[in-house]
Amino acid sequence: MQSSEILKRIPLFNGLTEQQLLDLAEIISERSFKKGENIFAEGDEGVGFYILAEGQVKIYKLSVEGKEQILHIFGPGEPFAEAAVFTGRSFPAYADAMQNSRAFFIPRQAFVDLIKSNPSLAMNMLGALSMRLKKFAGMIEALSLKEVPGRLASHLLLLSDQEGVNEFPLNISKSQLASLLGTIPETLSRIFNKLNGNGYIESNGPRIKIIDREGLEALASGEEKLS
Amino acid sequence: MQSSEILKRIPLFNGLTEQQLLDLAEIISERSFKKGENIFAEGDEGVGFYILAEGQVKIYKLSVEGKEQILHIFGPGEPFAEAAVFTGRSFPAYADAMQNSRAFFIPRQAFVDLIKSNPSLAMNMLGALSMRLKKFAGMIEALSLKEVPGRLASHLLLLSDQEGVNEFPLNISKSQLASLLGTIPETLSRIFNKLNGNGYIESNGPRIKIIDREGLEALASGEEKLS
Repeated sequence: MQSSEILKRIPLFNGLTEQQLLDLAEIISERSFKKGENIFAEGDEGVGFYILAEGQVKIYKLSVEGKEQILHIFGPGEPFAEAAVFTGRSFPAYADAMQNSRAFFIPRQAFVDLIKSNPSLAMNMLGALSMRLKKFAGMIEALSLKEVPGRLASHLLLLSDQEGVNEFPLNISKSQLASLLGTIPETLSRIFNKLNGNGYIESNGPRIKIIDREGLEALASGEEKLS
Repeated sequence: MQSSEILKRIPLFNGLTEQQLLDLAEIISERSFKKGENIFAEGDEGVGFYILAEGQVKIYKLSVEGKEQILHIFGPGEPFAEAAVFTGRSFPAYADAMQNSRAFFIPRQAFVDLIKSNPSLAMNMLGALSMRLKKFAGMIEALSLKEVPGRLASHLLLLSDQEGVNEFPLNISKSQLASLLGTIPETLSRIFNKLNGNGYIESNGPRIKIIDREGLEALASGEEKLS
């Protein structure tokens, strides 16, 4: 299979036109790694990123005792190290081939030059990533609306009990709270709006006032669902 | 608040340096919309995208009967129409202000010129979006590992019953199957690997062979969890 064919299947590049895929294919080179071979080390300069074509690669950190902590295992079709390379940082972890592997290497400088002469390539990538992010945010919302309102209700009741009052400030930012509850800030905002609109609470910036304690308890226990 | 301060808080731009935020602030203009005012119409040329600073904006389509179907409601700090504008398409829907609103407008051509003269701005945005996508993919995985293995087991048993055989091809692509089950291809692949590794099935490309039918039934009913 031609490398432009393989590139086309990668979500990172699926906003690109045929011509842009061919331009991209011009700057990539193929690299092969034997099973167990190191690909890059933590702290190495992020000179380029990889797309795995065949085999399996593990990304790991080493503890001070030298113990390996695997962060991720990548398979064919998956890019790795691209986020570090885009932002011009050094590699944040080690990468080793777990099987005999073949990968495409995309050098950072050539990629920057390509964007400079052809900014629509970057625009199309930004467009595809933005759409994918929106789709993912929608899925997280659909998945987390089932359980997060109950977890948020428990959290608010807990804060109220700790403080011994009905009205209190949130003690962490909404984005930290979203992480804590297993969702994203956008979905958390929507849940707060619903709790407000349905008369469970009144919230004003970070200040929360509990209006319907029994209702929140029913949400927290799962007896009631937020609609 | 200065516009570069507001831009900094938007996930789309949070990989940018102070200087890049200032450069970006140079090309944006502020626009105000009265409650009910139309911002753009479906099919209008995507000349630029918006970041809402104050107020509320609805994105909607019109049915052939002229009925409004709301796709999304955006609040302060959220960008809208950026995916269409990045990829150079026309606006795919209507946008109206639901309250008196204030937004930053980022013209497409000036943004393209900025990337051309300053490709690291695009690189930093690509880096931040890639990292956010990885984080979101991790959350979808964590959220969907609870229920998706059971749904996949049901689906495989259904296919086997329909065909009346123990070994059959998947009738849709893995990416369609992922959507159907409410997850993403990466997570679906990992679940398939676990079903293989734990002896529930043998899969070879799109061909599936059921090895442990009782085990799959226990997963499908929720009696057992995939570990």
